[in-house]
This record gives sequence, C-alpha cells and structure tokens, in this order.
Amino acid sequence: MTTIDIPAGSLFGLGNLPYGVFSIDGDSPRVGVRVGDSVVDLAAALGDDVFAAPSLNPFMAQGYDRWVAVRERIRELVSGEIPDGAVHPVAQVSLHLPIEVADYVDFYASEHHASNVGRLFRPDAEPLLPNWKHLPVGYHGRSGTVLVSGTDIVRPSGQRKAPADPAPVFGPSTRLDIEAELGFIVGAGTPRNTPISPDAFPRHVFGAVLLNDWSARDIQAWEYVPLGPHLGKSFATSISPWVVPILALEAARIPLPGQTDPEPLPYLRESAPWGLDIDLVVEWNGEEVARPPFREMYWSPAQMLAHLTVNGASSRTGDLYGSGTISGPEKHQRGAFLELSWGGKEPLTVKGEERTFLLDGDEVVITGSAPGADGARIGFGEVRGRVLPAS
Amino acid sequence: MTTIDIPAGSLFGLGNLPYGVFSIDGDSPRVGVRVGDSVVDLAAALGDDVFAAPSLNPFMAQGYDRWVAVRERIRELVSGEIPDGAVHPVAQVSLHLPIEVADYVDFYASEHHASNVGRLFRPDAEPLLPNWKHLPVGYHGRSGTVLVSGTDIVRPSGQRKAPADPAPVFGPSTRLDIEAELGFIVGAGTPRNTPISPDAFPRHVFGAVLLNDWSARDIQAWEYVPLGPHLGKSFATSISPWVVPILALEAARIPLPGQTDPEPLPYLRESAPWGLDIDLVVEWNGEEVARPPFREMYWSPAQMLAHLTVNGASSRTGDLYGSGTISGPEKHQRGAFLELSWGGKEPLTVKGEERTFLLDGDEVVITGSAPGADGARIGFGEVRGRVLPAS
Repeated sequence: MTTIDIPAGSLFGLGNLPYGVFSIDGDSPRVGVRVGDSVVDLAAALGDDVFAAPSLNPFMAQGYDRWVAVRERIRELVSGEIPDGAVHPVAQVSLHLPIEVADYVDFYASEHHASNVGRLFRPDAEPLLPNWKHLPVGYHGRSGTVLVSGTDIVRPSGQRKAPADPAPVFGPSTRLDIEAELGFIVGAGTPRNTPISPDAFPRHVFGAVLLNDWSARDIQAWEYVPLGPHLGKSFATSISPWVVPILALEAARIPLPGQTDPEPLPYLRESAPWGLDIDLVVEWNGEEVARPPFREMYWSPAQMLAHLTVNGASSRTGDLYGSGTISGPEKHQRGAFLELSWGGKEPLTVKGEERTFLLDGDEVVITGSAPGADGARIGFGEVRGRVLPAS
Repeated sequence: MTTIDIPAGSLFGLGNLPYGVFSIDGDSPRVGVRVGDSVVDLAAALGDDVFAAPSLNPFMAQGYDRWVAVRERIRELVSGEIPDGAVHPVAQVSLHLPIEVADYVDFYASEHHASNVGRLFRPDAEPLLPNWKHLPVGYHGRSGTVLVSGTDIVRPSGQRKAPADPAPVFGPSTRLDIEAELGFIVGAGTPRNTPISPDAFPRHVFGAVLLNDWSARDIQAWEYVPLGPHLGKSFATSISPWVVPILALEAARIPLPGQTDPEPLPYLRESAPWGLDIDLVVEWNGEEVARPPFREMYWSPAQMLAHLTVNGASSRTGDLYGSGTISGPEKHQRGAFLELSWGGKEPLTVKGEERTFLLDGDEVVITGSAPGADGARIGFGEVRGRVLPAS
C-alpha cells in the first residue's frame, strides 16, 4: 500500500481531482484521476470496470448523482492508503484523448474577441453584428479531428484568395493561428425536445478542458461566406487531457460582466451566474504572449448549452462545446494571434523575433487555473501543439 | 428454402441491392438487403456476424474489396434458394437509422439553389458569392440529430427577428421548410493528412441516401451571421433507410453541367465525372410539388469529399455529407419551399390550398430513382416526415 504526497502549491490537490485516460507501456488505456504528481488507476483502486474503458464516456453516462458519489469516494481513497499497483507517477504515463467526441460546437462568446474580429474584417461597420448580444453565436465543427494535447499539427493546405488576387491559389496556409478557449463536455445528454435550462447546466455538463481551435485565417477568410468556417478550422482542434469536473469549479463562479442592455430572453437567464474566474496563459515557443481571462466572457457555458438545445436538438454523452476565443479588454489578454498582431499589421516580439502567424516548428502551450474550494488554486494542465510543415 | 420473386418494374432489382438495418417484432436490429418487396437477413443468409450489428458501420469499415465481394455473393444468393427464416416481406419489418453517424457536413452545391437563395437574401447584389464556383461551400451539422425516415419532426422553437422588428422574439418557427438532398456515406475513412482525390471517391464512399435537411428559415435568417446556420438546422435531418451502393450507380454517371469558367483547381478535377442522373420527387401532403434533378448539380459528390479532406482532415466510417438542396433551372425543379414560394411571396397550391411554409400536421415525402446497370431503374425508397406542433 502507498499514500499519495501532494506537493505544496500543487494545482492538483483534493479540490481538483480531474479525470483523464492514460496508459503505461502500451497497455490498454483506462480512466485515471490526477492527484498531485500521481495518477490513480480507478479501475484498480475502486474495482469498477466502468473505469477500464478507453474513454470517460461510460462513466459520464452514469449521470450527476454518480459523479458526486465517485468524487466523494476518490477524496476518501486518496486521503488514505492505496494499493501500490494503482498509483503511477504522472511523468511515466501516456495521456490520451479523454472522451469519445460526439458533436462538437464552437461558440464565439467573448465580446472583446468578437469586437476585435469585427473591427479587423469590417472596419467601416459596427464591430458586433445585430444578433450577437441576443444569442450565443456558434457553429458545428469536426468531431473526428479533436486531438489530445501533444499531437503535432501539420500545416493545412487549402484555397486562399486575398482581395487583390485575381483568382484563388492552392497551397499551405500562410496565416496559421490559434484560439485559446475552454471546452465543456456533456456527460449526461437529453433526448430530442427536452431543452436544458441554464440552471440545469451542472447536472448535464461533466467537466471542462483547455481547447486550442487551430485556425487557418487565409483559408477561412476566402471560404466562410455565407455558411461559416469549414476547412479553415476542420483540420485540428486540440484539448487538454485532464477534465476538470464542474463540481470542482464552484469557487470559481462569478457574475457575468454584461447582459443588462439588452437583457437576454428568458430561456437564457440564469438564477445564479455561471461566469467562471479562470485564467489562461498562452506561451509561444516558451514565451508568454497572452493571459486571456475567462471571467470577461459575455455568455456563460450554461447559456451556451441552453441555446444549443432550445430548438429541440438532442444532446449526447461526449458532446464537446468550445467557448470561442477568450479575449479581455487589454492587448495582452487577446487569445488569438490574429488579434495580438492586429491582422498581421502589428507584429509582436517572441524570443527577440518579430512574429505574426505560426511558422513551421513553432510550439504553442496554453495553461489555465482557477480558485478552488479550499483556497488552493486548481489547474487545467496544458494543451500543447507543435506545427509541422505541410505534407 | 424459398426464392425471391422480384415484381416487374421493381426499383429494387438485382442492379440495386441497397442495404439497411431492420428488426422484426422488437428483435435486435441487424443488416439486411432489399430485393423486390423482400428483405434478406444477411447475418442469417451469409452466416457472417458483421451483419448482426445494429448499423452498417462494421461492414462498411471492411473496405472496398469486401463491398464488391459481398455484392457479388448477394447477387448469387438471391438468384437461387434462400433459407426461409432469412427472408421477410418489407411491409413486416421496422427500418432503423442505417448508420452510426460520425461527422455530418452539408454542402450547397446546386448553382440554381445558391443563386435563388442569393437573389432572395441579397436582391441588390450578384446572386453567387465570389468563392462559390471555386470550391464546394459547406458547413458541419449536428450528427446526433440525424433521424431515419418516418420519425416525426417537432416544430422547433428559437429566436427570430424580422428586419422591421424592434427586438428578437422567442417562439415556434413560423417558416419551417425542407431541403431535398442526396446524402453520401463514407464507408472507409482516412487518417489525418491523407486527402482523398475525386477519382478515389468510390473506394471511400459506400453509398447514397435521400436526405431532408429540415430548416427553420426565420431562426436561420437571424442567427446565421457571421458563422453560418446552427439552430435553424440542428433540430433534425432525416435520411432514407436504404443505402444505395455507389457500385449500383455506375449507369447513372454523367458529365457535370458546368465547371468551364472557371476551371476548378487541380485537386478538384475528376478524370471521369461523378455527375449523377438521379431524379427526386417531393410530395407535400401527397401532392407532387417539385422534381429536383441531381444531374443539374454544379459540384459532384467526389469533389465534395476531395474538398472536405484536402486540408488534412481525417475521415471516418459513418461520415455523412449532404449535397445541399437540389434545384434545377425550372420552377418545378426547386427542392425547398423557400424557393418554390419565393420567400413566401408566391404561395403554391397544395391540395387546393395556398401554401408557403409547413403547417403542423403536414407530411413531406421525398423519393428518388436513377438508371441502373441493366436498363431497369433503381430506387432510393423514400424519406418521410410529418410535422408535430411545438412542444
């Protein structure tokens, strides 16, 4: 038997307990929980085969009451003695995509991001389109290209055409970008025609991850009218391997910063707000370039899910939805290079070099943390990706 | 033992042999093939458990050579004697969603449809946007709300705002519409960074279905800028239960009607065209209101798949992509009520009544057929749906 020593200041203390899928030495992937710098094998420690699955989906499908009970059981377990074979140093495991992704939706819920993009793309008009403050604008993305942190990103090829070009050309994207986001995972879905109110959010959404919505801005700009982004986004979306339970985010809840003019329609109103005080940090080749604040988001993740289901759409275990790029009011708080470099016109300095969009070999790491229940901060780990040349 | 009698003029002769998933008396759903007015239970008839699955996915994942071999084997089998228990009258079986849908993409590949919509939504501008003849415009839809024919459609609720309204209102859609399309199903996918050329289409795409992309035009019009349709489309997409193999469509291949000005970029060029001579018929409450011709489509399904994967996006068994509304040059060939009623301004007469969009209780049936290999026509069956009041 062994006990787990949680280092002082760890972002993975008892107030966090994020779930992931891991393997050792090529064995079958299975569900684990992270405690300090250790991973606890839940199938071995709890003797429950639902955790021997290669994704969190079977456990998530068991529903809210079970999520609460297992979290309590894990808290007891890791405070006592655990069989030796059920505990592994996190440095010795491989981490996998934690969920089998059902539908993937990406929102556009930061007023600062949407306004910046509006100013860049439509300089002579109001930055926000008329619908923006009435509903969380979003679109479906490609579930099959959601990847776990650490997966290399091959530069996508596609069509692009600058306004002055006579015709489109085909080739590798020259404006490859990131979008620093949070992703939310539906654990317990709903059948058709049973909308989920904002207040029911924690009974349906199991947890949150960091998300990088890699974006080829040149492909996107040419293709996106009138049906939205497609190839410019569908090559890769990366998520962090640890799923932070919504149950761990109670201390991070804060009011939303806006929504008084206009007030949202009743189906989008929360009786207690689901703004979240989560700090992200974006590093480009090891240098911090942005610190996007989730607390500045206009729409909450509870409102996003309410909107997503209000038309009668069913939801499923494994549905993933992203917040959209997180940007704050300050320049240093912008979560995409498009905004940080103001469309490429204002390069930033990274490791002494002037940079706008991603070059081959670049690496981006996004981390995140939030206040936890007992005063200690809790961490989201990281979502990391390196750019390989076009194939 | 029994022999199958194929009625003269049947659209389900030996040149068709579409696959579906059926059950009898509440038994487990399994894969069958339709021959005349009979369904052959393939697990029972061929003694192969891949057909005992509740979807076509395991069989489709076996790949092209296997699709060819099984088709040959079935042709032999149904030309001879079959065990009694393996043959059922089609009227006595329940038909299910034939595939487990992975990613769902909907294109916009009819020039007549895109031009009509452009004229309706942007009356003072060129009807086609600049990118339209350079790439097949498309967007991702909601996989989890793809339904089999016969499933009732509850009228969706959502936000809408006409240009003259001071603020958006919430309520049941008042402009519920259909889109008559074909859907194509990827049987054998590809890993990331291995684009599928148009000529490789039949090695990857297993078959085709009829598809009705139910659309709430009022919700769509208010929400869709700048990221495309979302709630206006995500409540339901219906497909026909019989998957017509691409192998059965060889005699339906025809040249595409356009693509000379401009010529497509090389990655979209076909060495032999995949235009398809398929006729659809749309019935509204039992009265024929349109006859959309797939032969008039600008982009082929092979080009759609090539575009979808050219950025390095992976594809999976069960991916479904729709053609977009099929409309021809004549008024009677328009595959959506939006176009048939010219945005609601020119009602059509259905069963003696003036109609524009769908009312509760309305039923829409789309059928389709094509030339088959031996001179006989082959059928797609039908996709049927009835509108229930908002819940």
